Amino acid sequence: MTTMTPLKNDRFLRALRREPVDATPVWLMRQAGRYLPEYRATRKQAGSFLGMAKNPDVACEVTLQPLRRFELDAAILFSDILTIPDAMGLGLYFVEGEGPKFERTVRTAADADKLGVPDMETELRYVMDAVRVIRRELDGNVPLIGFSGSPWTLACYMVQGGGSKDFALIKAMALNDPATLHKLLSVNTDAVIAYLAAQRAAGAQALQVFDTWGGVLSPAMYREFSLPYLQRIARELDRGEGNERTRRDGEAGAHTPLILFGKGTAAYLEDLADTGADGVGVDWLIELGEAAQRTQGKVALQGNLDPATLYGSPDAIRREVRRALDSYRDGNGGSRDGHVFNLGHGMSPDMDPDHVAVLVDEVHAYSAR
Amino acid sequence: MTTMTPLKNDRFLRALRREPVDATPVWLMRQAGRYLPEYRATRKQAGSFLGMAKNPDVACEVTLQPLRRFELDAAILFSDILTIPDAMGLGLYFVEGEGPKFERTVRTAADADKLGVPDMETELRYVMDAVRVIRRELDGNVPLIGFSGSPWTLACYMVQGGGSKDFALIKAMALNDPATLHKLLSVNTDAVIAYLAAQRAAGAQALQVFDTWGGVLSPAMYREFSLPYLQRIARELDRGEGNERTRRDGEAGAHTPLILFGKGTAAYLEDLADTGADGVGVDWLIELGEAAQRTQGKVALQGNLDPATLYGSPDAIRREVRRALDSYRDGNGGSRDGHVFNLGHGMSPDMDPDHVAVLVDEVHAYSAR
Repeated sequence: MTTMTPLKNDRFLRALRREPVDATPVWLMRQAGRYLPEYRATRKQAGSFLGMAKNPDVACEVTLQPLRRFELDAAILFSDILTIPDAMGLGLYFVEGEGPKFERTVRTAADADKLGVPDMETELRYVMDAVRVIRRELDGNVPLIGFSGSPWTLACYMVQGGGSKDFALIKAMALNDPATLHKLLSVNTDAVIAYLAAQRAAGAQALQVFDTWGGVLSPAMYREFSLPYLQRIARELDRGEGNERTRRDGEAGAHTPLILFGKGTAAYLEDLADTGADGVGVDWLIELGEAAQRTQGKVALQGNLDPATLYGSPDAIRREVRRALDSYRDGNGGSRDGHVFNLGHGMSPDMDPDHVAVLVDEVHAYSAR
Repeated sequence: MTTMTPLKNDRFLRALRREPVDATPVWLMRQAGRYLPEYRATRKQAGSFLGMAKNPDVACEVTLQPLRRFELDAAILFSDILTIPDAMGLGLYFVEGEGPKFERTVRTAADADKLGVPDMETELRYVMDAVRVIRRELDGNVPLIGFSGSPWTLACYMVQGGGSKDFALIKAMALNDPATLHKLLSVNTDAVIAYLAAQRAAGAQALQVFDTWGGVLSPAMYREFSLPYLQRIARELDRGEGNERTRRDGEAGAHTPLILFGKGTAAYLEDLADTGADGVGVDWLIELGEAAQRTQGKVALQGNLDPATLYGSPDAIRREVRRALDSYRDGNGGSRDGHVFNLGHGMSPDMDPDHVAVLVDEVHAYSAR
C-alpha cells in the first residue's frame, strides 16, 4: 500500500457532486485505445488485448497514455467489461475483428446455477492490482474511475456467447424462461457490487456502470431486466461503503461517486436519476439540456457528444463542443455545475488524436469563460 | 392495364384512416423473406436477391408467398430500399453476409452534382412492372404497399458505400460540408417523391418511407438532415396526387395513405405526426400507448412488437401481442381504431413461420373480442 498524495485536479469529483468548478471537466470513453500510436505499440508488444488487461503494469501504462497527451480530468482503468463472467469460468477470448466471445455460455437454469460471485482478490486480483498501480502512478494528478458492465449487459454476452445484432437468445430467455434470466442477473448483480466495492477499496475514486445494451429492450423489458438491477447496485454499493469505510486514499468515509451510463436509455433518465447514483451518462440521442431539465438537478450528467464529431474538422468540433456545453447550461438553469463532458459512446480506432486535443481544450476554454 | 376488382379486405386502409375495423389489421416488415422455405427455393432458382427484385414475376411470387400462409391484411412490394441510388448509377451489389454495397459513392460536391432523378418508367420500370403484376395477382384480396428508403437513409448508403456501424463518413460530411449533404438529400427527396408517385400510379394502395437510420443522429442533426425531407415528401406527394389524379385503381382522386417509419426516432413522434402523413411506424423502444397519447389521434400508428418476440414460445407471443394491442387501446382513449399491428423492425431469416401464424391469428382474435 502506498500513501496517497492529495488530488491536484478535483474538477471531475466536484462536478459529480454538482459543486462549482473553474472549468467543466472532461474525459472520454475509450480514451485509452487504438487511436493512439503508443497504445498500438504497447499492444503489439503485449500480444493481445487480454494480455494487456491482465498485466497491471501494462494496464497502468495504457491508462496513463492519453493523460500524457491531453488535459483530461480523469483516468479510467484500462480493462474489459467482461472480466466478471471470465472470472466466473466462461472463458473470455477475442477474435480479431469480431469482438469478445465466450467459450461457455449460459442458456439453461442449470448453467445459471453453476455461477458464483468470483473472489475479487484472487480471481480478479489483476484488476485490483491494476487499480493500485495506477493510483500510485497517477500520483494524485487526476482521479481514477473504476468500472463494470451492467448485470443486463454482462448477461447479453453470457447468453449470446458474444456480441449480437438482435439479442435473439437472451430475449427468448426473457420471454420463455424469465426465472433463469433473473437468476443470472441476480448473481451478476452480486458480482458487480463486489467488484465495484473491491475497486473502490483498491483506490478507485469514482465508479461507472456501462449498460451498453440496455437500449435494445422494450420499456417493459428494460424495467424488468435492467433497471431493477441498476437500482440495487446504487443502493447496496452505497450501503456497503457506509458500513465498511475501507477506502485507502486518506479520505476514509468519503463517498465514492457512482455513474450509470446507458446507451439508448434516455427514455429512462428520470428513473436513473432516482436510483441514488451520483451521475448519469447519456448518449447523443437526446439534447443535454432536455436531459438536465428532466433530471432536475438530482444527478450530475455526463456526456454527450456524438463520437463521430471527432471525424469533423477542428472548427466543427469546437462548434459542437460549445453547443453541448450551452445546451447543458440552458437546461440546468443557467449553470454549468454538475456537467462532466464526455462523448455519448466510446472512441473508435480511426480517430485523430489531434482532434481529441481540440475537443478537450475547447471544453476547458469555453466553459471557463 | 388491368381492371381492378374491389378490395375484399380493407382493414389496413381503414385503420390508416382511423376508421373502425372488425379486427386490428396486421402485416410484418420483411414478411416476404428468408424465413420462408418457399422464399429460399425461389431465391435459389433466381440466383440472387437483386435478380429476384428486378424480375417482376419473381418479385410478385415472393410478395404473395406470406399471404398464402398467413391471414395478413396487406402485401408489401418485394424490392430493395436502394433501387433509387442504383438507378442513379451508383451500382448496387450484394456481398453474402455483408449487406448492400455501392460500386461508386458520393463524397464530394462534384459527386452530388452528377446525380439526377431517374426516369421511373424506364430506369425503374422493373419496380413499376412488379407493382402492376402484383396488383393483378392480388386480385383485390388485400391492399399493396409500395415503399422507398428515406432521403437520409439512402444518403447513408450512398456516402458510406454500404452499411455502417458509426456512419463516420456521412456524419463528417454533415459537420464539414453540410451544403453537399443537403444537395444530396434534396435530389434524393425529388427522386423519392417521383418514385412513390410512380408506384402509386402503377397501383400501390399505400406508401411507406423507411427512415431506417434516422435514429443514429443527434436531435439537432435529425432536425436538419432527416426530418425536413420527410416533411417535404408528405407535403409534395399529397399535392401531386391532388393535381394529377392519375391513379388507375378505379378510385381516381382517392387519397393514397403515406406511412413514415423510423427506427430509433420515437423522440420525434410529434413532429412526424405533424408532417401530414397518415401513419407513423414505431419501433419497440416506446410503449405504443405512450406513442398514441403523444400523437393525439393525428395519425394512425403502426407497430410495434420487438421482432425478437418471434423467438418466444407461442404463449409468450400471444401474451406480447395482447400487451401491445392493449397498450395502444389504453393510450388511444379506449379505442383500437387507428392501429396497424406490425413488428418494430423487419423479420430475420432464422424465425419460425409457425410463430408468425400464432402472431397474426392472435392479433385478429384478440382485437376482435
